[in-house]
Amino acid sequence: MESGDGEVVSNKQVIFKDYVPGALKESDMYITTSTIKLKVPEDCTNGVLVKNLYLSCDPYMRNRMRKLQGSYIAPLNPGSPICGRGVAKVLDSRHPDYKKGDFIWAMTGWEEYSLITATETIFKIHDKDVPLSYYIGILGMPGLTAYAGFYEICSPKKGEFVFISAASGAVGQLVGQFAKLLGCYVVGSAGSKDKSEFWVKEGIVCSSASERYGASSAADCPESILITYVHGLHQFPRLPIAISNIVYVDLLKNKFGFDDAFNYKEEMDLDAALKRYFPDGIDIYFENVGGNMLDAVLLNMRVRGRISVCGMVSQYNIEQPEGVHNLMSLVPKRIRMEGFLVYDYFQLFPKYLDMVLPYIKQGKIVYVEDIAEGLENAPAALIGLFNGRNIGKQVVAVSRE
Amino acid sequence: MESGDGEVVSNKQVIFKDYVPGALKESDMYITTSTIKLKVPEDCTNGVLVKNLYLSCDPYMRNRMRKLQGSYIAPLNPGSPICGRGVAKVLDSRHPDYKKGDFIWAMTGWEEYSLITATETIFKIHDKDVPLSYYIGILGMPGLTAYAGFYEICSPKKGEFVFISAASGAVGQLVGQFAKLLGCYVVGSAGSKDKSEFWVKEGIVCSSASERYGASSAADCPESILITYVHGLHQFPRLPIAISNIVYVDLLKNKFGFDDAFNYKEEMDLDAALKRYFPDGIDIYFENVGGNMLDAVLLNMRVRGRISVCGMVSQYNIEQPEGVHNLMSLVPKRIRMEGFLVYDYFQLFPKYLDMVLPYIKQGKIVYVEDIAEGLENAPAALIGLFNGRNIGKQVVAVSRE
Ligand SMILES: NC(=O)c1ccc[n+]([C@@H]2O[C@H](COP(=O)([O-])OP(=O)(O)OC[C@H]3O[C@@H](n4cnc5c(N)ncnc54)[C@H](OP(=O)(O)O)[C@@H]3O)[C@@H](O)[C@H]2O)c1
Ligand SMILES: NC(=O)c1ccc[n+]([C@@H]2O[C@H](COP(=O)([O-])OP(=O)(O)OC[C@H]3O[C@@H](n4cnc5c(N)ncnc54)[C@H](OP(=O)(O)O)[C@@H]3O)[C@@H](O)[C@H]2O)c1
Repeated sequence: MESGDGEVVSNKQVIFKDYVPGALKESDMYITTSTIKLKVPEDCTNGVLVKNLYLSCDPYMRNRMRKLQGSYIAPLNPGSPICGRGVAKVLDSRHPDYKKGDFIWAMTGWEEYSLITATETIFKIHDKDVPLSYYIGILGMPGLTAYAGFYEICSPKKGEFVFISAASGAVGQLVGQFAKLLGCYVVGSAGSKDKSEFWVKEGIVCSSASERYGASSAADCPESILITYVHGLHQFPRLPIAISNIVYVDLLKNKFGFDDAFNYKEEMDLDAALKRYFPDGIDIYFENVGGNMLDAVLLNMRVRGRISVCGMVSQYNIEQPEGVHNLMSLVPKRIRMEGFLVYDYFQLFPKYLDMVLPYIKQGKIVYVEDIAEGLENAPAALIGLFNGRNIGKQVVAVSRE
Repeated sequence: MESGDGEVVSNKQVIFKDYVPGALKESDMYITTSTIKLKVPEDCTNGVLVKNLYLSCDPYMRNRMRKLQGSYIAPLNPGSPICGRGVAKVLDSRHPDYKKGDFIWAMTGWEEYSLITATETIFKIHDKDVPLSYYIGILGMPGLTAYAGFYEICSPKKGEFVFISAASGAVGQLVGQFAKLLGCYVVGSAGSKDKSEFWVKEGIVCSSASERYGASSAADCPESILITYVHGLHQFPRLPIAISNIVYVDLLKNKFGFDDAFNYKEEMDLDAALKRYFPDGIDIYFENVGGNMLDAVLLNMRVRGRISVCGMVSQYNIEQPEGVHNLMSLVPKRIRMEGFLVYDYFQLFPKYLDMVLPYIKQGKIVYVEDIAEGLENAPAALIGLFNGRNIGKQVVAVSRE
C-alpha cells in the first residue's frame, strides 16, 4: 500500500471551495476522496511523493482564501486541496536529495498523499528524537517566526518588559519563553475557551483531544479542564495538563514560566488591564492580534519601545479591518513598529535549531500542541484559530506513520 | 526704552485662556497689555531679559493646550502668555553666556518682552548673514526635525521614492529638498488655500501678508495669488512668489524642485492618487499628517519601506483620533514605522548647521516663510496651521529689531 511501487490508493482530501470575504465557515471546505498512484510520474523530474502525517493550521492560510491581489503569497485554487505546511514520509522520489523512507516537512496538500513538485519548500528531518509534529511547530515555521520576530526585530535586552498577545499560540508561547530565557519580565494575553466545548460528558472532564487520547476523570479538580497535551521529550508520552477554564493563566505562568498572564476576553478595558500588569509600561510588544489590543498597547508603551508586528489575527476573518486610533503615541514615545516575514529568515534555520533543540531536550523550553485527529476535523481546526479554540500549536494528525 | 536699564514698559501679550478639547478657536486666546521692567530681577540668577522679534507657530503647541496627562511636554498654564520658540534680542542678562545685544533663539513667551528663566533652551545666534527668523525655521527646531527625521530615521538611499505630506510646511519643504539633494524621487502633498482669504480687494490680488508688505497688482495674472514671501539671501529682500490658487504644485515643483506634487484636498481617493504618482510604490514616507493619508500610504508602500512618523497634524485639532485601518500592510511589506522627537537630536545642531548654512548661501536650499505681522495676528496664525492657511513656515513678527 505505501511502498511507493505504484499502487493506486484512495486519497481523502480537504477541498477549498471558493474565496471567502467575511468569516470562514466549515462549509467553505469539504471532504472528498480521489485516488492517487503512489509513484512519481516519469515526466515529473524532481517530484517527491509523500504520505502526509501532520498538517499545520496557520492563521495566514485564511488570507490565501481571499481573492487578494498583489499579496506576497498567492491565493489558493478553488476546487483544489488546501495547501499548507506538513510533516510527511517520502514514499517515492525523483529528487536526488530525498529518498523513500525519509521524513520531511514541506508545503504539501490537505490530503493523505501528495505529490510535491515545489520541492524548494522541502526540509529534511534529521533529528527524530523529538515529536515529528514539532517540525510544523517549534522546529518549523512558527518556531523560526518567534525566534526572528523576537531576536531580530525587538532588539530585546535583559530586564525589559515584554507583552505578548495570542501568547499561548504556536508563536506566542515561544516568544514568551525566549524572553524569559533572556531575563525579561513577560506577560501574555490569551482568551478563555468556550467551556461547553470541553464539558462534553457529565462527570468526565474532557476535550475532543482528551477523548481521543483517553478521557481523564477530574472529579478532584472541578474548576479545571483537560485541554491539551504536552509532548514529553524523548519518551513521547502525552502528558495531560490541567488549566483553568477561565483563562490560560496557569498554562502561561506555570508551564511556560511567564511572570503573569490575563484573559483578554474578560477585560472590559484593555488599557486598564495593561496598566495593571505593566504599571511602568511595556518595552516590547510582540503583536499577534491587532485591533483594539494594539490600540491599548500603544497607550502603554514606554519610551523607545519596540513593536514587532508578526500578525493581526483578529483582522483576518472580518471584511473590513478595524481602525487603530492611538498611533500618535509613536511620536512622543519614539516607538519603532516593524513588520517582518519569517521567509526572510529561513537562512537562520540551522542556527535556530542549534539553539532550540538542546533547550527542548533539556526541558528548558516546552511546546504545547493541540492535535485534531483526522482530515475530517481539519476544517474545524483551521477555523478554530480565529475564535481561539486552539490551545497551543494547532496540528491535524492525518496519520502517525 | 530698550536699554535694559530697568525702564518699566508696556508689554502686549497673547494669553492662553483654558484647555481646549476640540477645535482651537481664536477666542481661546486673547490679547492683553501688562507692564514689565526691562531688567533681570536681582534674585533671578541666570535670568535673561529679551525683546521678542519672531515667534514660531508650531503644530505641537496645540497639544500643550490640551489637559494631557503624562505627555512628554507639560500643558500650558491657563491665564499665562503662550509659550513657544522665538528669536529675540537680549536686553539684560544675569547669565554668563549671554549679554546685552546678543541675538538668541529660545523658549520664550508670546509677548513683546520676556524674562527667560529656562535658560537651557537658549541658543545663541552666531551667523546673522541669513534672516533672523530662520532660527525658528530652517535653522531651528523644524530644520533639525527635517534633518534628523529624514537622515536618522528613514535610512534614505539615492534613487528611492519619497513621499512627504504637509510638504510645503516648515518641516516638509526641507525634507523634500534634502531628499532631492540625495538623488531621490520626491513627491509632496499639500492643500489648496481658501481663495476667498486672498482676494480681499477687488482688482488687487493680495493676501494678508501681501497687504502688509504692499499689495501687488495682478491684473496680468488673474489665476495667481500672492501668498507669501521668500527671504532673499544676504540682501533680505522679500520676494513675492506667485503660485496657483488651486494647489502648491508650482511651489513644490518649481521652488523646491520636487519631482511632482498634488493637492490632497482635491483628491477624492488618496489611494488612487498615490498609485498615480508612485506606480512602483513608496520607499519612504515622511509622515506629517496621519489619518486617511497614512491609511492610503500604507497601501502604497514598497517592500522594506520606512515611515518616519514626525507628526499627525490632522489629528491635533479633533477630540477623538481617527482610526487607521491598513496597518496589516506592515507585515507582508516588512515596513518599519518609527516615531521620533527632535529633542533627542539637539546634539546634532552643529553638524546640521555646518551642512545647511552653505546650502542656503549657495541657494541650493530655499525656505518659504509665511509671516503674520504683530501679536494681534498670532492667534489666527496658530489656528491657521490646522486648516492649512499657512504656506511655508508660519512665523509671527513681533518686531524687526
Ligand atoms: N510574520 C510572519 O512571518 C508570521 C509567521 C507565522 C505566524 N504569524 C502570525 O503570528 C500570529 C500567531 O500565529 P500562530 O500560528 O501562533 O497562531 P495561534 O496563536 O496558534 O492561533 C491563533 C490565536 O489567535 C488568537 N485569536 C484569534 N482571534 C482573535 C481575536 N479576534 N482577538 C484576539 N486573539 C485572537 C487565538 O488565541 P486566544 O484567543 O486564545 O488568545 C488563537 O488561538 C498570527 O497573527 C499569524 O498570522 C506571522
Ligand atoms: N517629531 C518632532 O519632533 C516634530 C518636530 C516638529 C514638527 N513635528 C510635526 O511635523 C509636522 C509638520 O510640522 P510643521 O511645523 O512643518 O507644520 P506645517 O507643515 O508648517 O503646518 C502644518 C500644515 O499641516 C497641514 N495640515 C493641517 N491640517 C491638516 C489636515 N487635517 N490634513 C492634512 N494636512 C493638514 C497644513 O498644510 P496643507 O494643508 O497645506 O498641506 C498645514 O500648513 C506636524 O505634524 C508636527 O507636529 C514633529
